Amino acid sequence: MADEKPKEGVETENNDHMNLKVAGHDGSGVQFKMKRHTPLIAKDMEILIGLVPCRSMASKTPVGFIGLGNMGNPMAKNLMKHGYPLIIYDVFPDACKEFRDAGEQVVSSPADVAEKADRIITMLPTSINAIEAYSGANGILKKVKKGSLLIDSSTIDPAVSKELAKEVEKMGAVFMDAPVSGGVGAARSGNLTFMVGGVEDEFAAAQELLGCMGSNVVYCGAVGTGQAAKICNNMLLAISMIGTAEAMNLGIRLGLDPKLLAKILNMSSGRCWSSDTYTPVPGVMDGVPSANNYQGGFGTTLMAKDLGLAQDSATSTKSPILLGSLAHQIYRMMCAKGYSKKDFSSVFQFLREEETF
Amino acid sequence: MADEKPKEGVETENNDHMNLKVAGHDGSGVQFKMKRHTPLIAKDMEILIGLVPCRSMASKTPVGFIGLGNMGNPMAKNLMKHGYPLIIYDVFPDACKEFRDAGEQVVSSPADVAEKADRIITMLPTSINAIEAYSGANGILKKVKKGSLLIDSSTIDPAVSKELAKEVEKMGAVFMDAPVSGGVGAARSGNLTFMVGGVEDEFAAAQELLGCMGSNVVYCGAVGTGQAAKICNNMLLAISMIGTAEAMNLGIRLGLDPKLLAKILNMSSGRCWSSDTYTPVPGVMDGVPSANNYQGGFGTTLMAKDLGLAQDSATSTKSPILLGSLAHQIYRMMCAKGYSKKDFSSVFQFLREEETF
Amino acid sequence: MADEKPKEGVETENNDHMNLKVAGHDGSGVQFKMKRHTPLIAKDMEILIGLVPCRSMASKTPVGFIGLGNMGNPMAKNLMKHGYPLIIYDVFPDACKEFRDAGEQVVSSPADVAEKADRIITMLPTSINAIEAYSGANGILKKVKKGSLLIDSSTIDPAVSKELAKEVEKMGAVFMDAPVSGGVGAARSGNLTFMVGGVEDEFAAAQELLGCMGSNVVYCGAVGTGQAAKICNNMLLAISMIGTAEAMNLGIRLGLDPKLLAKILNMSSGRCWSSDTYTPVPGVMDGVPSANNYQGGFGTTLMAKDLGLAQDSATSTKSPILLGSLAHQIYRMMCAKGYSKKDFSSVFQFLREEETF
Amino acid sequence: MADEKPKEGVETENNDHMNLKVAGHDGSGVQFKMKRHTPLIAKDMEILIGLVPCRSMASKTPVGFIGLGNMGNPMAKNLMKHGYPLIIYDVFPDACKEFRDAGEQVVSSPADVAEKADRIITMLPTSINAIEAYSGANGILKKVKKGSLLIDSSTIDPAVSKELAKEVEKMGAVFMDAPVSGGVGAARSGNLTFMVGGVEDEFAAAQELLGCMGSNVVYCGAVGTGQAAKICNNMLLAISMIGTAEAMNLGIRLGLDPKLLAKILNMSSGRCWSSDTYTPVPGVMDGVPSANNYQGGFGTTLMAKDLGLAQDSATSTKSPILLGSLAHQIYRMMCAKGYSKKDFSSVFQFLREEETF
Repeated sequence: MADEKPKEGVETENNDHMNLKVAGHDGSGVQFKMKRHTPLIAKDMEILIGLVPCRSMASKTPVGFIGLGNMGNPMAKNLMKHGYPLIIYDVFPDACKEFRDAGEQVVSSPADVAEKADRIITMLPTSINAIEAYSGANGILKKVKKGSLLIDSSTIDPAVSKELAKEVEKMGAVFMDAPVSGGVGAARSGNLTFMVGGVEDEFAAAQELLGCMGSNVVYCGAVGTGQAAKICNNMLLAISMIGTAEAMNLGIRLGLDPKLLAKILNMSSGRCWSSDTYTPVPGVMDGVPSANNYQGGFGTTLMAKDLGLAQDSATSTKSPILLGSLAHQIYRMMCAKGYSKKDFSSVFQFLREEETF
Repeated sequence: MADEKPKEGVETENNDHMNLKVAGHDGSGVQFKMKRHTPLIAKDMEILIGLVPCRSMASKTPVGFIGLGNMGNPMAKNLMKHGYPLIIYDVFPDACKEFRDAGEQVVSSPADVAEKADRIITMLPTSINAIEAYSGANGILKKVKKGSLLIDSSTIDPAVSKELAKEVEKMGAVFMDAPVSGGVGAARSGNLTFMVGGVEDEFAAAQELLGCMGSNVVYCGAVGTGQAAKICNNMLLAISMIGTAEAMNLGIRLGLDPKLLAKILNMSSGRCWSSDTYTPVPGVMDGVPSANNYQGGFGTTLMAKDLGLAQDSATSTKSPILLGSLAHQIYRMMCAKGYSKKDFSSVFQFLREEETF
Repeated sequence: MADEKPKEGVETENNDHMNLKVAGHDGSGVQFKMKRHTPLIAKDMEILIGLVPCRSMASKTPVGFIGLGNMGNPMAKNLMKHGYPLIIYDVFPDACKEFRDAGEQVVSSPADVAEKADRIITMLPTSINAIEAYSGANGILKKVKKGSLLIDSSTIDPAVSKELAKEVEKMGAVFMDAPVSGGVGAARSGNLTFMVGGVEDEFAAAQELLGCMGSNVVYCGAVGTGQAAKICNNMLLAISMIGTAEAMNLGIRLGLDPKLLAKILNMSSGRCWSSDTYTPVPGVMDGVPSANNYQGGFGTTLMAKDLGLAQDSATSTKSPILLGSLAHQIYRMMCAKGYSKKDFSSVFQFLREEETF
Repeated sequence: MADEKPKEGVETENNDHMNLKVAGHDGSGVQFKMKRHTPLIAKDMEILIGLVPCRSMASKTPVGFIGLGNMGNPMAKNLMKHGYPLIIYDVFPDACKEFRDAGEQVVSSPADVAEKADRIITMLPTSINAIEAYSGANGILKKVKKGSLLIDSSTIDPAVSKELAKEVEKMGAVFMDAPVSGGVGAARSGNLTFMVGGVEDEFAAAQELLGCMGSNVVYCGAVGTGQAAKICNNMLLAISMIGTAEAMNLGIRLGLDPKLLAKILNMSSGRCWSSDTYTPVPGVMDGVPSANNYQGGFGTTLMAKDLGLAQDSATSTKSPILLGSLAHQIYRMMCAKGYSKKDFSSVFQFLREEETF
């Protein structure tokens, strides 16, 4: 889209109506307005300059990272690989050690992170943790600088995201929700998908950082819609996975060969990601958790958590989710019956158990 | 019964593992391997070979067709186009008129069809109709000839298919279940998919006829597995359609743009045929029933019927189908609430209705 | 209603308003109207005694009994205690030994029973067994005498009951469905409840025998309604049992004392038989299976079977049973997860299992 | 512990296990035991004793009442009847008019109520309203006096009750949750049931006021358990109501007379409050909403709301509620399909609608 090499602070102008201003040598200051919900084409870009200087994007200034767990750890490392100095915090000091050893700065609270960095990424397990990190006694909001960009990649209730965004906005800063899709493997290889909600003008700024950690950064709309997109996808995923497991199990009991049935479904209207890419049935496909005793992949506990968020969102918006709700209960039960650490496709095994007398 | 040497059309060679080559001018060159799914003993083989000529495949002898409804009518016409003379029967005489006018022979009972044709296709709405057509007072079995090939393309309970197959076998004839996927349009254009259950050695013979009416003829295994495959596919289809409707509705209520959400789902793990090919959400895609007020397509009533068959099969095989069962109930309710004639993707509309106070 | 004087057969006349006409030794003319749905009082009973001669009720002529399993055995013994000679048959010869030793006549097929007795009770585990006993190669219908009274106490699909009734009627005999409620204990003590469907005029005749085995004999309507009543009751029972288990479990996790919560439910609108008489929660009540590690009582497998019948009936009548259907699936799963032999109240234990990580 | 002699209203005696006797002229003679459910430490005891006089129970000092809606209005009037002067607040000024006309004091915020009364009852529609009334900018907590007793009779999330209790406790006051069972009629006649959660020592004080408005005041345990008890009861109620509707509908379609079926269920294990006291089937019982086109009673919307709370509680405590969850979805759908204002027993009508083609 922008052929000319941007220098620092250079402004490029397009004859028709596009203006691009690139404020950093890696393009980090590019800010452009997108037409809501349309794919990003060069033509849509406009210059947005307001926040750039105060967020010091002209050079790779430190980025705060809060939450260095299974996902946060490799994500932060990818930021390091792209040359960003980090300001690190985790409630478990051990989680920070690796980064301290690598020369990154470890501080003792989210507030301290906010004091030293004006771009911060949070990656936390639950809504409660996120609230604590932002609004707690030593939370980000205690010391957040005006104009800071706060990106929450936790998967939490969209209503909480909206709440946090309001508080952040009061402090003159910007909040975006950017939950990820893809597991630890994608986090390591920098191939996560980010679903981003927030003010559209800030998307490019977020994209600069998120692009270091993911191969796919999708703008979803206002704050909370990143969470919404993730929740909706995962709910549909859970439903079609259980559906695939039920259909395959029923077919096998009716005398069908599993591989043949999978083939038939995949060339018919029953086709779905769970049937054609991630089969829950051992012996049908290689390289998926079902081929490896349901090790690895996306854990049943995590799916149960995401379905809980879908449930909460559905209840608060009064949206009927009959299958989603039942899927939630099924994963809930699986967690209690020894499947918590297995991949969520183990629902096939759960349903498959034979009646004994 | 199979003493005579086949004159033409079939060649057997068989030292160790046996190949069958059907050399008739229609099924010419078709070659199929034995024992892929079912053990086949030598005696069966002789019988099988004997059957082919007595079913007069060398020339286009009459084919019986019972059930000339919305689906049967265009299917029968496609057989005519391929040069097969028909022996026609339908409980509603009006349904036969068109064929009589075209010079086909119309008879007054399934038994009469069986008297005049040794290959018969039945296309009936329910298990009860099929039982009547085969085992009724004037049913096929009253006059069926030894060696006849009876193909039932009705969608019925696999247990009924098996029962019919037993009775047919007692008469020295062959029964195959071959339910179709694809609606009236596919029936007209000859693009149906047939899922075929029955003795594998007879598959080529069935394929000769079914290939005139469909572009896809899949061998599924023993008798009843054709039904099983269709039922499993449609159950998974219903589940993923409702799931798509729930996810889209929830996402919209959470503030997502429907087109964007559909796009995100389709590049993620929520992807399924209902989301990427047959969206239930108006305004997202062209050329689907949701773009046309849910007219056309696959009716809610038919889906409810197929889910009833899935339910019956699951109950009799003691297979848990938690989502399948709930999907059944949802389509059941939709039928009672004015959606019976709409396409089954109208479940989105059903769920979408807003609460009013 | 019956003004004309009967030519033969006993006539009993009630001073107020009831007339009975008994015409013919096979009961063919017997016509007496009962007040639909009212309990039968002693006065009515006397009148009914008039019927005895036509089906040899004047003396205790032999009663056939087919199916001497856990339930049939004590039921048959109660008939013996009331002085009825028995004609016994069971597919398992061992099941008959006890009766042979006691001097009862053991024969070798249902047909033989029908030859020697004109009142027969069948108590069989499934629809298939019942069909075999009636319509099989050596079934009752092969030798049933005109006017015989055939009472099926099996719990089976009401549609099968109706089918059997039709066949029985063709032979000039009478069929009634009379499934029981109450387990082995009630069978031993003669305290079963019978729910009876069939021609109302025959109810008294059935009651004579059933009253020896149960303390409660309820007329439900036409053939099949006995089954219907039982199925509906058990479906509601399953639903309220699971509901009680869910509510108690949720309450306990929210910090409520189980006994207190039970007390609150029982004085409120949540009250049901499962909460006030048969609590699924250990430690709340004595003398119920939950107080004894869910031993005894009504097994999960049997509940799953009855729910399967409810499901079949609902599917065939197109009745939505959302909770009933899910209850079916839950008991289905429990059977596969080690609960098959426990009392059905063990669903509390099933739901109670804690998530472990 | 408890060295000082209370001046009036409260007497302590008993060195080892302690009984509290509340001797005020209203709560006179009320005696309650310690440590039945919660451990009580000496320090709490001192505080408790200290609280009583400062809450001026010796005479009928003003009671604050916030929320004068359909339920709050008649509840407040019953307090007036018992001689309590009221301090009134409602967000809708019109709701206060009646009370101002009757001479009660109307103020302009919850904070003002708290300034003038040390016993306050809140009766609000949702968690959000309750949070606003307590913690809002002009909420109770802004001016609450130490030792005040704050009773929330709203039906809200138990987690919110606990949260409010914590904040109230910080201010040195006491919070109890006391949701009601029974509708507007019971509110008028003073026959509500209150389920009370909070420090047990304060139960008597709460009982003094609640006893003016209800005939049944049940102590449930720690804060939040009042809500928990109500939620669990209503969830079980919803489940058994839908179950009753499904069973009755299925039975009727299978040919049973509704009254007879109801009678059979009620003498069997299917018996529940919905079947024996509040039948959903028109024509079976008098004096219930189903006999009056589902007018009056407990609205579908309210049931959907309570099920939403059950859902939230189940999700946060990871308790599986398969039927509860589906019941929630069913009431959710009913609200969207014209049943929002009908009694919740109208689920029978909802399920009853016949399929049309």
